[in-house]
This record gives sequence, C-alpha cells and structure tokens, in this order.
Amino acid sequence: MEHPEHKSKELQRLETFSDGVFAIAITLLILEVIQALHSSVRVPLKQLFFTNWKSMLVFLIGFLTILICWINHHVVLTYAEKTDGNFFWVNGFVLLVVTFTPFPTAILAEYVETESALALAIFGCNYFMMSLSAYFFTAYIHRKLASKEDKDLLNYYKVLYKYSAIYTFVAIFICLLSVPVAMFLYFILFIPFAFPKEVVLRLSRRKYKKKKRSATHVSVP
Amino acid sequence: MEHPEHKSKELQRLETFSDGVFAIAITLLILEVIQALHSSVRVPLKQLFFTNWKSMLVFLIGFLTILICWINHHVVLTYAEKTDGNFFWVNGFVLLVVTFTPFPTAILAEYVETESALALAIFGCNYFMMSLSAYFFTAYIHRKLASKEDKDLLNYYKVLYKYSAIYTFVAIFICLLSVPVAMFLYFILFIPFAFPKEVVLRLSRRKYKKKKRSATHVSVP
Amino acid sequence: MEHPEHKSKELQRLETFSDGVFAIAITLLILEVIQALHSSVRVPLKQLFFTNWKSMLVFLIGFLTILICWINHHVVLTYAEKTDGNFFWVNGFVLLVVTFTPFPTAILAEYVETESALALAIFGCNYFMMSLSAYFFTAYIHRKLASKEDKDLLNYYKVLYKYSAIYTFVAIFICLLSVPVAMFLYFILFIPFAFPKEVVLRLSRRKYKKKKRSATHVSVP
Amino acid sequence: MEHPEHKSKELQRLETFSDGVFAIAITLLILEVIQALHSSVRVPLKQLFFTNWKSMLVFLIGFLTILICWINHHVVLTYAEKTDGNFFWVNGFVLLVVTFTPFPTAILAEYVETESALALAIFGCNYFMMSLSAYFFTAYIHRKLASKEDKDLLNYYKVLYKYSAIYTFVAIFICLLSVPVAMFLYFILFIPFAFPKEVVLRLSRRKYKKKKRSATHVSVP
Repeated sequence: MEHPEHKSKELQRLETFSDGVFAIAITLLILEVIQALHSSVRVPLKQLFFTNWKSMLVFLIGFLTILICWINHHVVLTYAEKTDGNFFWVNGFVLLVVTFTPFPTAILAEYVETESALALAIFGCNYFMMSLSAYFFTAYIHRKLASKEDKDLLNYYKVLYKYSAIYTFVAIFICLLSVPVAMFLYFILFIPFAFPKEVVLRLSRRKYKKKKRSATHVSVP
Repeated sequence: MEHPEHKSKELQRLETFSDGVFAIAITLLILEVIQALHSSVRVPLKQLFFTNWKSMLVFLIGFLTILICWINHHVVLTYAEKTDGNFFWVNGFVLLVVTFTPFPTAILAEYVETESALALAIFGCNYFMMSLSAYFFTAYIHRKLASKEDKDLLNYYKVLYKYSAIYTFVAIFICLLSVPVAMFLYFILFIPFAFPKEVVLRLSRRKYKKKKRSATHVSVP
Repeated sequence: MEHPEHKSKELQRLETFSDGVFAIAITLLILEVIQALHSSVRVPLKQLFFTNWKSMLVFLIGFLTILICWINHHVVLTYAEKTDGNFFWVNGFVLLVVTFTPFPTAILAEYVETESALALAIFGCNYFMMSLSAYFFTAYIHRKLASKEDKDLLNYYKVLYKYSAIYTFVAIFICLLSVPVAMFLYFILFIPFAFPKEVVLRLSRRKYKKKKRSATHVSVP
Repeated sequence: MEHPEHKSKELQRLETFSDGVFAIAITLLILEVIQALHSSVRVPLKQLFFTNWKSMLVFLIGFLTILICWINHHVVLTYAEKTDGNFFWVNGFVLLVVTFTPFPTAILAEYVETESALALAIFGCNYFMMSLSAYFFTAYIHRKLASKEDKDLLNYYKVLYKYSAIYTFVAIFICLLSVPVAMFLYFILFIPFAFPKEVVLRLSRRKYKKKKRSATHVSVP
C-alpha cells in the first residue's frame, strides 16, 4: 500500500517547494528598495544613496536573515530520510515565518528613525519565531524522520536552536532597553547560524574528547 | 517512437513547474500586507497592528489555503506514474485556481468589515473551485495515470474531494445567511484536507475491517 | 575534458530555471487584477465584477497563453539529449518572450475598450514572437541536440511552428481590419498548440499511411 | 558521520535555490515596465512605445545581464563535485548581487536622460560586483570543490573573471568621461560572457598548441 520510492520522491518535492518559497521571499525584498526609489521625491542622483540608505541597509539585513534561514533549513533537512503528513505542517510553519519576514523588514525600514526600539523589537520577534520554527523542525526530524546514526548529531542541532530561541526571546526585551546592545547581540547570534554544520561538528567533537579524557582519568588511578 | 524515460522526466518537470506556481502564489500574499502598511496613513507603531490586523489575518488564511492545496496536490500526484497531453490541462486547472486565490483573498481583506457575508461567499467560491479541481485531478490520475494497485486507495481520495465539493458549494449559500456558522463550517473542512493521506488510510482500513467482520458474520452461521 | 554526466545535469538545470521563469510569469499576472481592485474607486462588492471584468478576462487569456507556451516548451525539450552554449541563448529567447508577455497583456487590459484593434494587434505580435521562438527552439534541438530516431518526429513540430509563425504574422494585420475575425483566428490557433504532441503524432501517422498506400499503389501494377 | 549521498543532494538543492533566485530576479524586471505603463499619463496607444521606450530598453538590458549571469553560474557550477558551509556564503554573494540588480536597472531607467553618465556608472558598479562575485565563486570551486582533472580548465575561468573585474572597474570611470565609449566597452564585454565555455575551451587549446610548438622548437635544434 506504500511504495518506498514514493518516500524519497515526496521528500524531493518538499525540498523544491521550500526552495521556491525561500528564493521568492529573498528576491521580493528588492521590490521595497525600488518602491522607495519611485515614491521618494525625485532627487539628484548623487543624493539618492543618502535618502535611500535605510531601504538598502534593511534589504541587506533581510537578505542575510533569509539566506541564513535557508542554510539551516538545508543543513538539517539532509538528515531526513522520509517525510510524513505532520512534517508538511512542521515545514509549513518554517515557510510561514520565512514568507512573513518581508513584513517586519518593511516595518524596520519605515520606523527605524522615529521608533527604532519598538521597530527592532518587532523585527526581533521574527528572529524568535525563526529559532522556534527551526527547533520544531529539527526536533521532528530527530524524533521521526532521521536514521539512528544521525540522531546523536541532530541532538546538537536541537540544543543549538533551543538556546537560540531563549537568546532571541531575551533580546526582544533588550531592544526596548538599549538598541545598540540589542544590535550587538543579534550580530553575535549570526555567527553560529551562518555555519551551523561547522558549529555542531565542533561541539560534538569537544564532547567526545571530554568523554575520552574523563575515561582516561578514571582508568589511570 | 516514445521513450520510457521520457515519461518520468516529463512528470518531474510538471512537478517542478507546479511547485514553482504554488511557491510564488503563497509568497505573493505578503505583498498585500506590505502594501497595506505603505498605503495607510502613518500611525504610531503601537497602533499599527490594530489598524492592519485585517490584512495580517487574511494573509494567514490565504497562506493556510494554498499550503493545504499544495499538500493535497502533492499527496495525490505521488500516485501518478506517467503524464499525458490532457493531464497538462487538468493540472493547469488546479494551477489556475491556485494562481487566482490571491484575488478573492484581497477582496476578503478589503470588504470584510463592510460586506462580510458577500466577501466570504466569494472567498467560499474559491474553496468550491479548489475542491472541484482536486476532484478532476484525482479522477484523471485514477482513470489514466495510476498503477492498478493504487486504484483502490485513489478511489477514497475521489470520494473525499467529491463530498468536499458538495460541502463547499452548500457553504457558499450559508455565508449569505450566517457568517459565524459558515466560518465554523470552513474550519471543520480544514481538518480532513490538512491530513488527506491519514484520513484516506483510516477510511480504507475501516472499510477493510467492516468487510472482514461481515465476512466472519457470514461464514460463522 | 568533458564529463558525460555533466551534459544531463546541465540540461536539468536549464529545465529548472525555465520552469521557474514560466511559473513566475504565470503567477505575476494576478498582481494586475489585484492592482485594478485597489486602484479603482471603492465600489459596492456586487458591482465589483462588472467594473473589473476586463482585468479578469485578460488574466485568463494571459494564463492560458503562458500555460500553452510551457506545454510546448516542455514537450519539445523532452527530445533534447544534451545542451550547449548556443542553446542557452535559443532558450533565453523563448524566456525573454515569456517574461515580456505580462506587458502586452497589461496593454490589452488598459486599451481594450478605447483602441481594441491596435491593442489586440500588439498582443498578436507577442503570439508571433512566441511562434518564432518556438520554431527556433525546435529547429535547434532538431539539428544539434536530438537523437537520430527523434529527428523525423521533430520535423513535424518544426513544420507546426513554422506555419503558426506565418499564421500569427497574418493575424496581426487582420486585427486592424476586424477584431472579431482576428479573435476567432486566435481561438482556432489554440487547439493545435494546446495538444502539440497529439497533433504531431496524428500528422506523422497520416503521412505514414499515405506512404504505405502509395507504396502499395506502386507495387501493384 | 557524513554520508556521501548527502553531498550531491546538498549540491542539487543549492542549484534549485539559485535557479529560483535567478528566475525570479529576471522575471521581476517586467514589473517596472508595467508600472511605467500605469503611472504615465494615459496616452494614445500609438505614442505608448515612444514614451515608454526607456523602460523597455532597460528591461532588455537587465534581462540579458541576469541571463548572462545565470549562464556563467551554471557553467562553472558543473565543475563542483560537492558543497560545504563556506560555499553557501560564496554562492550567497553571487545571489545577493543578482537580487540587487533590478535596483541599479531601475535607477538607469529613471535617470538615463537627465544624468546618464552617473546612472551608467552606478549600473557599471553592478557589473564590477558581478565579475568579482563570479571570480570568488570560481576560485572557491577551483580550490576546494572540483576534481583534479578539472582544475586546469577552471584556472582559465578564474583568469577570465579576474580580467573582467579589472575591466569593469576601469569602465566605471570611463562612464563619467564618455557615455558612448563606456557603452561600447560594455558591449564588447558581453561576448566572452555570453559564451564562457567556448571562450575558455579555445583559450586552453591555444595554450596547448603554443606549448606543443615551443616543445617542437626546443627539441629540433
């Protein structure tokens, strides 16, 4: 009643669909920059970059955010060996957050000068939702769709996304206290997410060494 | 004159094209939310979510609608083993309805407060067209493109989409009588469509048990 | 210096890229309909379909046009067994015409009531360009990328697109004389393009029969 | 801890994602042309092409630019045999430049008549960034992801993109001196980029002949 080749075919379609959503969300961001060009009063071209720097900076932030999201989605999904009905919805939650991202990005561009603290906090809520969706995504693959050998490694990803969810939740409130501190915190956050595989492999090796060392420690006396 | 490997290659391209259309339709919905942000008179950020809740709620409804559509398209298409000239058009009808979806969604956002009954009825027409296109899609795969072993199971999908077409057709008129009742009906409808495979597998097992029981019943006396 | 597996991998990427372009072009058409909704003076919902029928009809025409274009691109491309540097440009010409399509479609919607003859003629130019690009596409695959066994069949596609290029070129001028006659001609054109494979297979069989009959005729006396 | 089939699967997803981004960026360009149609005062249709020729020409330039970018991305990526964490970012830089392209294209359309020199220089900056990203992309594949046999050939690509980066950097300043000369230089640049594989294969053969000739020269006396 269930063909094995269906499994991998279904997984491939889920990837194609997700890649499409990521690709469109990341490309639509430029429409905001172009709209800012058209809607602003026509200025001499030399001054254009001074009047439009906000929309360009926010384009860059939005681009990096969605690219990082794609990298993490991509790296974790390689461990899934099949798919099921619930996973469509877990993945759908990730896609919902990604699709929604251009909205807080547009809010940030619109309000960055007048209400920077609140605008950044709203943008930070998006980071919290991303971490949360990445956690659910990883936890579901870990529990149901991965092979036994990969489960240990996936556990490190789960820990990474759990702590980042807590981290981003705290950062929302720091936005309201101090914008520069919050921006610094978000900047630090970028590093483990930009190279999730390398971070997780390093974490898993460190633990392995610790175990080995304590094992030697025990065996020596 | 016809290579067998052409068949599966053609099917894969149909999937990629369809996935692209679904991915774009689901992502374009956010443009409406952003446009509402720009077109509204500039309000303090705290009040933004109060003035824009409509566009955000409708974004969520549109997103769920297209995601459910994709899940059903995806699940049923796994049973197709080849493709043909007519199927391009049956699939094209599904894509037409999906591509059109952002329009009734925008109508719903625009008229939800002033003419809620009629706006919901128009949105309901879209659900009816979706059920109808899903029925044609499944019926065509059942009749021409599926292997013999899958035909029994596909019959349950056909029944599911036939009843949902009738259900959504009735719901259009209920919208005009009572908005809350119609919204409750649409909410119930979501459940079988959110997990089509699970529902169909349960239905097919129940029938199998019934058969078995009646068989035992017959054989005992 | 050239790996054989590169060939098919390159062909697959060309397909994915082309599918993406078709999928986006077909989905962007709805944006025009939504913009017409927003830009028109707010009317009671009952009258909405009377004021916006133009944009909806033109959406449908644009959708069918691009879908037919995709079907033909898809059917002919199955005969290509490899790709090369020139083919990127031949395919690029097809994509240029597809990408451009939303513009004459928007012109048609804007000017259909005031200057219907000229608006339809401009839209007809697009059909001519499509036929021309389909002819070049097929001719290039026929000459360079297809296997020997497929060349006979591809010749029929070449003939089909050559005649449709002549047909659509003539139809442009008929638009300026009589709009209803031109619309009737475009409607007839749809049929062979909607089912290109079926038409070509029928043509090739008919010729085969003729040959056989004349062969019998010759051999008898 | 690392499955070999993961490698090629990851590479395929990177291709699908990149193809999606290219496909959307190239299709979004038409939105500018349509917007120019709507925003201009309604003119008789005969005059439309005279008032809108700018936006149409710039659409064509933008289309060719992104198509050439895709062709080069495509040709070089066929030499990659795996992917890694850094490559996501090298590829991400290429995609950032591609995604950004519609903005300088829109600037060119807006300012081509009033400040042509500066508008073309800004557009030229984009060509410089493209060459630079293509160089990093090729250099990374050459150093880390290609097989040994392909390294010689990839070196020619590296040289091609290095010189084009220098060429486009110089061209930026020439824009400010003379617009026609700069346009001529960009036109010449198109040729090697339109057929990168053919150019590189010719270069590598020429060198091979030179080596052979000098080898004969040495051996004879």
